[in-house]
Amino acid sequence: MNYPDIDRVKTYLQNLQETICKKITELDGKETFLEQTWERAEGGGGRSRVLTNGALFEQAGVNFSHIKGEQLPTSASAHRPELAGRSYQAMGVSLVIHPLNPYIPTTHANVRFFMAEKEGEAPVWWFGGGFDLTPYYGFTEDVVHWHTVARDLCLPFGEDVYPKYKHWCDEYFFLKHRNEPRGIGGLFYDDLNQGGFEHCFNFTQAVGDGFLHAYVPIVEKRRNYSWAEQERQFQLYRRGRYVEFNLVWDRGTLFGLQSGGRTESILMSMPPLVRWEYDYHPEPNSPEEKLYTDFLISGKEWLSP
Amino acid sequence: MNYPDIDRVKTYLQNLQETICKKITELDGKETFLEQTWERAEGGGGRSRVLTNGALFEQAGVNFSHIKGEQLPTSASAHRPELAGRSYQAMGVSLVIHPLNPYIPTTHANVRFFMAEKEGEAPVWWFGGGFDLTPYYGFTEDVVHWHTVARDLCLPFGEDVYPKYKHWCDEYFFLKHRNEPRGIGGLFYDDLNQGGFEHCFNFTQAVGDGFLHAYVPIVEKRRNYSWAEQERQFQLYRRGRYVEFNLVWDRGTLFGLQSGGRTESILMSMPPLVRWEYDYHPEPNSPEEKLYTDFLISGKEWLSP
Repeated sequence: MNYPDIDRVKTYLQNLQETICKKITELDGKETFLEQTWERAEGGGGRSRVLTNGALFEQAGVNFSHIKGEQLPTSASAHRPELAGRSYQAMGVSLVIHPLNPYIPTTHANVRFFMAEKEGEAPVWWFGGGFDLTPYYGFTEDVVHWHTVARDLCLPFGEDVYPKYKHWCDEYFFLKHRNEPRGIGGLFYDDLNQGGFEHCFNFTQAVGDGFLHAYVPIVEKRRNYSWAEQERQFQLYRRGRYVEFNLVWDRGTLFGLQSGGRTESILMSMPPLVRWEYDYHPEPNSPEEKLYTDFLISGKEWLSP
Repeated sequence: MNYPDIDRVKTYLQNLQETICKKITELDGKETFLEQTWERAEGGGGRSRVLTNGALFEQAGVNFSHIKGEQLPTSASAHRPELAGRSYQAMGVSLVIHPLNPYIPTTHANVRFFMAEKEGEAPVWWFGGGFDLTPYYGFTEDVVHWHTVARDLCLPFGEDVYPKYKHWCDEYFFLKHRNEPRGIGGLFYDDLNQGGFEHCFNFTQAVGDGFLHAYVPIVEKRRNYSWAEQERQFQLYRRGRYVEFNLVWDRGTLFGLQSGGRTESILMSMPPLVRWEYDYHPEPNSPEEKLYTDFLISGKEWLSP
C-alpha cells in the first residue's frame, strides 16, 4: 500500500497542538490561548492558537494547518525542486514562544508532512521538522540539557541521526548577513522519506513529543530569575535578529507567504515588541557579550562524545 | 565621450547627504548625526550618518555609499538580468526617517547610480531613485502637497514622467502578503538611461533636491500635534509593516545584503522600536481605521488632472 496514512498524521498533529497548548497554559498560570480557525481559498485551512500578555509568556503562538494547493512552491522542498508545480498537501504544527523574562529563551518547533501528487504517478511524500532554542542569556547546563533531549530522542533511529540533524540546524538557523547563528540550535530535518512511512512518522512523533521535554525544564529553572531594564532592553534588541532571520532567510516563512498562507498565522512568529539599535556592541566582559562569545557559535558541540 | 562622469555624481551625492543631514538636525534641534565611514573588503565603502533619540526624530539614517564589485547581483537591475555577473560600481544616498511623533510620517528617499562594465564593451549605466511617504495618521492636504512636489519636479522632464513613476512607486512599495501599500507613495524609478547621461543626471538631481521640499513642510505642520499612548501604540504597530516590507520585498535591502554590504548601514532603515499584534484590527470609524480606508489605497490619484 503506497498511499501514506494522512489521517493518522493529522490526528497526531492536532493532538500535539493540544498537548503543547495545555502545558504552556499551565506554566503561564495567567492567560489562555485564543483560537481561530480559518480556511484558505485555494484549499485547506488551519487552527491558530495564540496566548498573549501572559505572566510568563509575552506571546506564544501554536499553529496547526493543513493546506492543499495546485502548485507546490519552490520553497517547499530543499532538495527536490523538480516537484515544484505539482499539486500538494502540507500539514504541520509550528510554534514560536516569546517569554517575557529575558532569562527564559525564545523557542521554535515545527513538525510537518508534505505530499506532492501527479496523475498516474505514486505520490511523493516527506516529513520535516525540528526544534531550536534562542537564549538571551546563556546557561551551559540548559544548552546541554536541550541537546541531550535532542540526542536521546534521535538515538533509537540511528547514531548518525543527532549529529546530522544538529548540523543541519546550525546551518539552517544562520543569519548570513550577520555571520551569526540565530541561537544554540537543536534539530532540523527535511525531505525525510527513507525507511518507509512508519519509520519517518515515528521519528517525527519523537521530535514533536520531545519538544516539551526539552523546553519545560529550562522554563522551570529560569522562571524565577529576576530581571531589570538592562536585560529587557537586550532581549528586545536580540529579538530583532529573530525578525531578520524569519523574514529574510526562513524557508518556512517564505513558503507560507508564497503559498498564500494566512499572513497573521505565519507572522505569529514575530516578537510582540522589538528594538533595533544602530551599531550596538555589548560591553566587554558583560553577560550580554558572553552570549556572543560563548553561546552563539555555529557548529559548537555541546555534548561530550 | 561615452564614459559617464562618475566624479560629478559622487560629489552631488555627498553634498546631498550633507544638505539633508543639516536640515534634519536643524529641525530636530536636540540631537546631531553621528558619522561612521567604512570600507568594504570587495571594494568601495561609505559614510553612514545616524541621528537617534532626537526631540523630533526617534531615528534618522542618511547613508552615502560607493561600492565596487566583481559580480553584479541579480537584484541590482529589475529589467536587465543579462548584466548580472559583470563588474560594477554602485553609488547612492539612501535615507529613512522615523519620527517620534506619530502625526509625522515616516519617509524614505534614495537616489542611486549604477555602472556595469565588461572588457571591450562600453559601460552600461543607469540611474534610479525616488521618495515615498508612510503616514500613521493621514492628512489629505499633506498627501496632496507631497505629490504636488513630486509632480512639479517631474514636469520639466515630460508630462508622462510623474504618472509613470508615481505608478511604479505604488507597485514597488506594496506588501503582497498583506495586500496593502506601504504608504501613500511618491516616486520610484530605476534603469533610467534614456536621453543621455546629462538628462538622467539632471532628473536624479531634481528628485534628490525635491525630497526636502516635499518632506519639511509636513514635518513643520505636524510637529506640534500632541499625541498619547494610543497613537504611539498604533505607530509602533504600523512600523511592523515597514520591517516586513524592507526585509521581505525590498530589492534595495536584498541588494545590500546579497552584495556583502555593511549590514548595520543597510538595516539602519529598521525602526528603533516595533510592535506586532496578532490579528489586530482598528476600531470602526477610528482615525486608525481611516488610514486603511482613506489613505492606504494603491493607485489612488491624489492630484486633480
